[in-house]
Amino acid sequence: MELVSVDDIRSAATDIAGHVLRTPLMRAPWDADLWLKPESLQPVGSFKLRGATHAVARLTAAQRSRGVVTHSSGNHGLALAYAAAAAGVPCRVVVPEGAPAAKVDRIRALGVDVVTVPPPRRAPAAREIATETGAVLVPPFDDRRIIAGQGTIGLEIVADLPDVDVVLVPVGGGGLSSGIATAVRALRPAAAVVGVEPEWAADARDSLAAGSVVVWGEDRTYRTSADGLRLPPSELTLAHLLDRLDGIVTVTEDEIRAALGRLVRDARLVVEPSAAVAVAARLFRAAGLPAGRTVAVVTGGNVEPAVLAAALAD
Amino acid sequence: MELVSVDDIRSAATDIAGHVLRTPLMRAPWDADLWLKPESLQPVGSFKLRGATHAVARLTAAQRSRGVVTHSSGNHGLALAYAAAAAGVPCRVVVPEGAPAAKVDRIRALGVDVVTVPPPRRAPAAREIATETGAVLVPPFDDRRIIAGQGTIGLEIVADLPDVDVVLVPVGGGGLSSGIATAVRALRPAAAVVGVEPEWAADARDSLAAGSVVVWGEDRTYRTSADGLRLPPSELTLAHLLDRLDGIVTVTEDEIRAALGRLVRDARLVVEPSAAVAVAARLFRAAGLPAGRTVAVVTGGNVEPAVLAAALAD
Repeated sequence: MELVSVDDIRSAATDIAGHVLRTPLMRAPWDADLWLKPESLQPVGSFKLRGATHAVARLTAAQRSRGVVTHSSGNHGLALAYAAAAAGVPCRVVVPEGAPAAKVDRIRALGVDVVTVPPPRRAPAAREIATETGAVLVPPFDDRRIIAGQGTIGLEIVADLPDVDVVLVPVGGGGLSSGIATAVRALRPAAAVVGVEPEWAADARDSLAAGSVVVWGEDRTYRTSADGLRLPPSELTLAHLLDRLDGIVTVTEDEIRAALGRLVRDARLVVEPSAAVAVAARLFRAAGLPAGRTVAVVTGGNVEPAVLAAALAD
Repeated sequence: MELVSVDDIRSAATDIAGHVLRTPLMRAPWDADLWLKPESLQPVGSFKLRGATHAVARLTAAQRSRGVVTHSSGNHGLALAYAAAAAGVPCRVVVPEGAPAAKVDRIRALGVDVVTVPPPRRAPAAREIATETGAVLVPPFDDRRIIAGQGTIGLEIVADLPDVDVVLVPVGGGGLSSGIATAVRALRPAAAVVGVEPEWAADARDSLAAGSVVVWGEDRTYRTSADGLRLPPSELTLAHLLDRLDGIVTVTEDEIRAALGRLVRDARLVVEPSAAVAVAARLFRAAGLPAGRTVAVVTGGNVEPAVLAAALAD
């Protein structure tokens, strides 16, 4: 299996420059050895805009006219809708019946077609649309263009903090961690890239231990508040993680909640639970992590106001 | 009266580089012609770190050993404490009895001396300490070093958006607006710099109209939620504003509250009411503002959790 290279990521960085926010590294006020990479500040509120923008930039002229399609009511769907709209490319987003109206409205507001189907029909419906219309299917993580796009975060981390020792990355489907591990391993081999998962969705940890994809299933992972981290890695992302990730740790729901409150109160960032796991690892798992100058990737800020209000009340 | 020059601001930018966050310009997701300058992301949560860091950097060796002193339980006190601690310079902060314990604890946590006095004794006590100990008094805005430090925001705005048309700046004591107007007027004369005040603390508007400092008094301005904007300009800042500001608009408390909610929900920034007034002007006073590519300075994020929770519930 051909893995993404740092040159693929450099090429992606050129493609997305000016279309996504070059986020700064912020010092965490409570920890002299911790920096935050606030991807929550992207226009759609998450790092997903990087991969989606790269996938759209790589379309041929013929593909551009036929457009793109995906199935996601979450951050990837919103990101692809935004990237496609910005590039003037037609876009369809398949969402499951029952998806939160606020999220679907936000996608629709970008002027893309929203196709509603029963939940199990999501992936097949997107594939059928791709076959029937010639639209290019852009999956949320199982894709070399997406991995390369997310990997641009790793380039920026090393550029801004050349002597970084540890990079902590939330792991869901593994696109982000694959890309960042690829970039950091190439540019700063001395640094460790460590994945972070919720204890209630530790399928990447189990997959790494087994050496092949272990699926927990949504009937089990639905319990974690970190809804962006419920999916297992794919064959493609697991191959990157087996080759390039230095380790993986898990955090509890209480720890995620505490880290979210810390980010809101002391770093003044609005974040979603999935985005708080890397900071939770630094706060509560430091003994099991390499020492030194640490960057925590804060992946997104699309949080329900009620969840935010509850964290503030703690 | 000698005004601050753009060269003073360039010199300040050199002095503070690496010690404050180079904040990005973020696109406002709801307005294609609006960018945000999120100074709330500074380590102490406000732009005040720029002026304070500059003032500390300009100390002579003899002054460094004697230290600095100020009177502020708010963002300036916190910023000076941080800047002094980072530079290894002794610092005393005079706070009024009854100041919020959370704010005082935050200042004390930086390892500086906190001196508590009855509210009317604040300014005299700081002056006495300066006289007795030889410490350098660093006021919050009535100071050329502070104005130059805050003006670095203007340099960055023009560097990042060279064809900016309008810059909207909150006006309290006028240090920030003096500095930004100086930088933008020099580097991008075609752009308008417009101040924004709460209707309930429009003393800078009245001062500009009268051509001399008009004091409303804290018995009148205490009503605004924008507690960082309650003070009138000084002779020094008013001289800058008369020479360089293109206009001033006011916003209501409801408008401030709506803008704060918009920033939290749609830009994922934790902001304080004072920091929301520029966005409020763009949302509710656009008809009275010049058209075009607009930057709103988002000054700080030190907000009480209850105020934030209330804005989210709207």
